Amino acid sequence: MIRVSVNGYGTIGKRVASAILAQPDMKLLGVAKTTPNYEAFTASKLGINLYVPESSIKEFEEVGLKIAGTVEDMVRNSDVVVDATPNGVGAQYKQLYQLSKRKAVFQGGEKSNVADVSFSALCNYSEALNKDYVRVVSCNTTALLRTICSLGKVSKVQKVRGTIVRRAADPKEVKKGPINSLVPDPASVPSHHAKDVNTVLKDLDIVTMAIIAPTTLMHMHLLNVTFSTKVSREDILEVFKNTPRIILIRSKTKVNSTAEILEVARDLGRPRNDILEVAVFEDSVYTSGNEAFVMYAVHQESIVVPENIDAIRAMTGFNDVDTSIKITNSTLGIRGGYII
Amino acid sequence: MIRVSVNGYGTIGKRVASAILAQPDMKLLGVAKTTPNYEAFTASKLGINLYVPESSIKEFEEVGLKIAGTVEDMVRNSDVVVDATPNGVGAQYKQLYQLSKRKAVFQGGEKSNVADVSFSALCNYSEALNKDYVRVVSCNTTALLRTICSLGKVSKVQKVRGTIVRRAADPKEVKKGPINSLVPDPASVPSHHAKDVNTVLKDLDIVTMAIIAPTTLMHMHLLNVTFSTKVSREDILEVFKNTPRIILIRSKTKVNSTAEILEVARDLGRPRNDILEVAVFEDSVYTSGNEAFVMYAVHQESIVVPENIDAIRAMTGFNDVDTSIKITNSTLGIRGGYII
Repeated sequence: MIRVSVNGYGTIGKRVASAILAQPDMKLLGVAKTTPNYEAFTASKLGINLYVPESSIKEFEEVGLKIAGTVEDMVRNSDVVVDATPNGVGAQYKQLYQLSKRKAVFQGGEKSNVADVSFSALCNYSEALNKDYVRVVSCNTTALLRTICSLGKVSKVQKVRGTIVRRAADPKEVKKGPINSLVPDPASVPSHHAKDVNTVLKDLDIVTMAIIAPTTLMHMHLLNVTFSTKVSREDILEVFKNTPRIILIRSKTKVNSTAEILEVARDLGRPRNDILEVAVFEDSVYTSGNEAFVMYAVHQESIVVPENIDAIRAMTGFNDVDTSIKITNSTLGIRGGYII
Repeated sequence: MIRVSVNGYGTIGKRVASAILAQPDMKLLGVAKTTPNYEAFTASKLGINLYVPESSIKEFEEVGLKIAGTVEDMVRNSDVVVDATPNGVGAQYKQLYQLSKRKAVFQGGEKSNVADVSFSALCNYSEALNKDYVRVVSCNTTALLRTICSLGKVSKVQKVRGTIVRRAADPKEVKKGPINSLVPDPASVPSHHAKDVNTVLKDLDIVTMAIIAPTTLMHMHLLNVTFSTKVSREDILEVFKNTPRIILIRSKTKVNSTAEILEVARDLGRPRNDILEVAVFEDSVYTSGNEAFVMYAVHQESIVVPENIDAIRAMTGFNDVDTSIKITNSTLGIRGGYII
């Protein structure tokens, strides 16, 4: 059993913790939290060990939250720490992981040089084998990489031009905006997403533009992909249909928006109504000569969770990528094909 | 003096009416309205003649609104009618314009076959000369055409690939949504905007994808344009700077969103805080070989107004495009260069 702990129990951390609990080859040692907010209370209610910084012990005890030890204790007792602290904080914690000689998975909010390798399970699992520090790329980059690496099975991908329409805030973030504006993010081109894709697919010609829209549910990507040969809509749909972690939304089900995708997730009983797959609008797949177009939705809160799990396996020497992906998918209910 | 009337006094109609009042060569006969809502009261307050369908006379009189006659009276006394009725209703009114032997300008919500020509002042003014029926293309298509025809001065435009992020509703539309979702519009590719551009630029290779975002202020376009030769950022900015009806937003003014563009319009004292120009984020202009990228905002409520005015001139035989555009621009306060 791989002993895993999660440093940070926010949007990503709590989902990775749930996912670890579902793995047959992993044990969740506990999670680290700095403030005793509702997520700490929920973790406690779920029976998850809480570790806190030395300086926070009093604050947690005052509100009646039982703690299992300090963050240092947690790291020391882990084989792998999943760092899910806020952007940039992971790099500060790296020293602790190094001093304790513990492996760590970082998130996409950290700079790529925090780790030995940036990671996408469908693209470069083997590069993470036995590495000490691996960075799972961000939600948008994870979706781009899953899609591009899958499209690579149709024909060689020569060029990607993409628009990313980002959700403004997560549902729980009550202080973030905008609530009525479109915000280029950034106004300069290319957006960082293209560069981040290049941390994994180093030679890909990719340019992305990004804006923020006032919604909390999901991102959307609108891609224009140029291949080295003529491609057909049928071939692309066939690959998408046969790639778990990509699901298809068909128009006859009358799911026409991100809100309706998540409503389906709620009705299907998915934990936290998460959509861990890239959700492709089947109708949007369009080809013209060497070019293809596709529109898909990305559940920013959860899409990186399976990649975190696979990264842990790769770092601890599990060298069968297909089996790792298969275990992760089946334990987390991840699908391929049509969602309904 | 060209006697002009406006059929429909909603978002577009009321703005076209204001614009006609500002033209030295046009006289506003009046506007037609079917329901006595706040816009009818406002028109009355502004001293604009109200014409109504026979069947609505009583309703208007009951709320104390004075009417100047019927819609038929209005059409009969006009040289040109600007039809700003809701999508599809203009085609029904065409019979009245034909029977009365009156010229009519239609809006982009009508099918292109409603008119002899689809119109964009910067692209094909001369095609509308002396025509009886001209269709000013929609807000999104107007912005696309202004931008593409301007970019054509840099080098031949070979290919346009664009994403359109549409505002969900106008500020006054209290019953429309979504308020928290991204909605592919449509999920199929290409969106109708590409086809609509082709009603004016018949041979252009253009594919557009569109989604709706929950905002009321402006649309945004994110374009990828391929030219027949290598292009430079400087050349593109130079053309944009020298093209009235396109304004540039520079980052040092810290205008980073559609909300802030409209705040500038309010502070500059623009009527209705309208932005009649395509508002290009200067930072977004990026080139790579034969390709250019650009992001701009489109004020859906007002961008087609100057094109309506120029269309009236072209249809009534004014054959000097540059002078028409110059008069329209100076009377409506339309600018080029940096907005601030």
